[in-house]
Amino acid sequence: MNYKERNGDRMNSDTIAAIATFPGNAGINIIRISGDDALSIAEKIFVKKGRKTGEGNNLKPRYLHYGHVQDNQGKIIDEVLLSYMKGPNTYTREDVVEINCHGGVISAKKILETVLLMGCRPAERGEFTKRAFLNGRIDLTQAEAVIDIINSKTDSSHAISMNHLEGRLSKEINNIIEKIMDILANIEVNIDFPEYDEDEITISDAKEFCEEILNKIDKLISTADTGKIFKEGIKTVILGKPNVGKSSLMNFLLNENRAIVTEIPGTTRDTIEEYVNIKGIPLRIIDTAGIRDTEDTVEKIGVEKALSKVDEADLVMMLFDSSRELEAEDEKILQYIQNKKTIYIKNKTDLENKLNLSGYEDIEKEAINISVVNNQGLDEIIEKLSSMFFEGAINIENELIINSARHKNLLINAKNSLDEVLKSINNGMTIDFVEIDLKETMENLGLIVGKSVSDDLVDKIFNEFCIGK
Amino acid sequence: MNYKERNGDRMNSDTIAAIATFPGNAGINIIRISGDDALSIAEKIFVKKGRKTGEGNNLKPRYLHYGHVQDNQGKIIDEVLLSYMKGPNTYTREDVVEINCHGGVISAKKILETVLLMGCRPAERGEFTKRAFLNGRIDLTQAEAVIDIINSKTDSSHAISMNHLEGRLSKEINNIIEKIMDILANIEVNIDFPEYDEDEITISDAKEFCEEILNKIDKLISTADTGKIFKEGIKTVILGKPNVGKSSLMNFLLNENRAIVTEIPGTTRDTIEEYVNIKGIPLRIIDTAGIRDTEDTVEKIGVEKALSKVDEADLVMMLFDSSRELEAEDEKILQYIQNKKTIYIKNKTDLENKLNLSGYEDIEKEAINISVVNNQGLDEIIEKLSSMFFEGAINIENELIINSARHKNLLINAKNSLDEVLKSINNGMTIDFVEIDLKETMENLGLIVGKSVSDDLVDKIFNEFCIGK
Repeated sequence: MNYKERNGDRMNSDTIAAIATFPGNAGINIIRISGDDALSIAEKIFVKKGRKTGEGNNLKPRYLHYGHVQDNQGKIIDEVLLSYMKGPNTYTREDVVEINCHGGVISAKKILETVLLMGCRPAERGEFTKRAFLNGRIDLTQAEAVIDIINSKTDSSHAISMNHLEGRLSKEINNIIEKIMDILANIEVNIDFPEYDEDEITISDAKEFCEEILNKIDKLISTADTGKIFKEGIKTVILGKPNVGKSSLMNFLLNENRAIVTEIPGTTRDTIEEYVNIKGIPLRIIDTAGIRDTEDTVEKIGVEKALSKVDEADLVMMLFDSSRELEAEDEKILQYIQNKKTIYIKNKTDLENKLNLSGYEDIEKEAINISVVNNQGLDEIIEKLSSMFFEGAINIENELIINSARHKNLLINAKNSLDEVLKSINNGMTIDFVEIDLKETMENLGLIVGKSVSDDLVDKIFNEFCIGK
Repeated sequence: MNYKERNGDRMNSDTIAAIATFPGNAGINIIRISGDDALSIAEKIFVKKGRKTGEGNNLKPRYLHYGHVQDNQGKIIDEVLLSYMKGPNTYTREDVVEINCHGGVISAKKILETVLLMGCRPAERGEFTKRAFLNGRIDLTQAEAVIDIINSKTDSSHAISMNHLEGRLSKEINNIIEKIMDILANIEVNIDFPEYDEDEITISDAKEFCEEILNKIDKLISTADTGKIFKEGIKTVILGKPNVGKSSLMNFLLNENRAIVTEIPGTTRDTIEEYVNIKGIPLRIIDTAGIRDTEDTVEKIGVEKALSKVDEADLVMMLFDSSRELEAEDEKILQYIQNKKTIYIKNKTDLENKLNLSGYEDIEKEAINISVVNNQGLDEIIEKLSSMFFEGAINIENELIINSARHKNLLINAKNSLDEVLKSINNGMTIDFVEIDLKETMENLGLIVGKSVSDDLVDKIFNEFCIGK
């Protein structure tokens, strides 16, 4: 059932509140309130500078009001800037109040507690954005883009999602849906009024239409792998026997882009992965804790442990030490990674070459020579990465790229039913035979933008959000 | 040198910018800009909805403008709400721009990068609040209160700091300073114009004045221990041999107040301490990781490890198992904690008593009987805590409490020179002899509110801030 159809243009809703910032050791926190009671709650807890408790604030909309939030005993909790935005021109299309208070955890927590006491309930995960969707301000691809923007780890994945938030994916999908609706309308005319000869859609018209649509869908599907890479990063394991230079390579890669996301406090504490953005290619290096814990020259982490990470990796970087002979441990690694996408790297080319890869001629041929100490060889690694994961140059900013498994699956479904349509046409079926498959194509595309989605799916999508968005 | 005297009412300053929220998985981030170029930078990067790039935004002050931030290539970074506040009625007294963007790390980071490219520099720690101080909007106690509010872990310490932010401490100190200035003025008159008999301050007048001031200072100093406790929590170690119920006691204490600060995400990840707020008394329980890692019934952490934490603790909670006899391990602990503030607790009083504390009659007498399984004995622990750490009832909200070691030290200095004044008077010195000591008293008080503080001290204080405040 269509949410907007069912609920009218704006849902009648209770009022919700949440802390919309990440409560930490920072300057500012924001408490956000949305719903019919937002303004009356603000009036109950806020006293504008120069006014007295109970006098009322006469809150001009969209204006930053300076004053204090008081608890239900009239005790000052914090000095704040409060703004009231009248629906429907707000994030949720409802009345919204935002309270900017001092950072830390107590002020925000106490203000939220007070707000909740005044008669609203804590917002569920993603509920503000869910309301924006349910109230028709944004469609489902845009709502999903909001999650992706918040979770994005690299500039590229952020740029891809911004395109979606700006509605470019919706526009493309809606254009295709409209085209299909045109064909369907023509088919209906043919079926209902076969006597109207002049409006009749010909088989060859329909075929052309469908092929054009199929092209567009194929093109979107073809971007999905790229989108996934930019969203999740290329899961990479650096392998090699002890003292081959794994941690040096890691630092070498990190040095290429000092503005890595993980330098921002609070993002890496629990994780043993690290994002590296090498000239726009996002690597998600697994088990960096292991690599980084070791000293440059002494690599204590055993090969065994690293090998256990290979299965989940998209890419292996396998290091040889060109100043030492091939050893049993090298061969053990080579055997283990046989079926993996691998970049073979010979390090320490500044020293005398003692490595003989006979028996592994293919590897010898494609291995990249680097010398971390001399800062040589990184460009070749980047070239190799590009050719392995991207076909041709990618213009993230201007191209429309799919980065959601949900979207990809629905596009594949749409493509499959469209294939059926074309098969029927090629088999000489009459035009009215293709109606069901065309409708299925349209429905799958509709699910992408959030037309006729189920409650369960909506709940599932917004449960991936954080509280306060 | 006095900052305000040196710099005039408002400093001529460069423009600074920082992310003012904690960049994490949350709904909103804020980028804050302050300085003469704040508005022109906003105009360069922001395009209001309905306008075109380069058209200008005509930004009405204190109003929330919806639109997009673009990078220097004209590429959209994020959709934002931007507000411009014209000085001097702003946080810093300078022109301020705040940009509310989507949460996560990339949007905020990219917007900040763009802002910096447009000609301002990254703010230092606490630099926004430092400017508020340097430009005379708040004094030093208020600036310090801002740090304390952000760092506060309990409602009580938050309330104490809010009092300071509201200027109650400044007011008290400034009142005392004014009183001293009155006396000093009178003394000057006596010295310069001894013939003006009628205005002369008598020795007994001066003595009365000084005693009154001394009382006020003493009263403030006497609150410092309480202030420290509320600011830092009572550093507590729970000790006892294995299987005595340490983790049960821990959970028992935690259950009393489920709204502990550490339930808020992101605050405990690196720490092995936990704040518990038991009926307003903040305990900072050390090595909770050790305690909590163990299962309720199997306490794997050795006594040795816990003992190593005793030295830094304000309080030991020593647990006995009343269903078992006194063992060597109990006695070892008792010996170790001889000189510590300790609450002795006998757990498992629901079982048959087998514990004999002969030889430790004092402990036997004061030990508190609890039964965690029957939820008995907590009230007695709370009473004991109150009597150990607080004299009489404390009304955090209405009392003025010192919570800074800096303030305490300066008050003690002021008290010492005032003692000298009174000693001189009692020794029959004439009134002009006390001038130097009285001036010293005044100077120490002046340092509290930030009159005549050195650059170094100001830098030191604001370096304790976070970036973005």
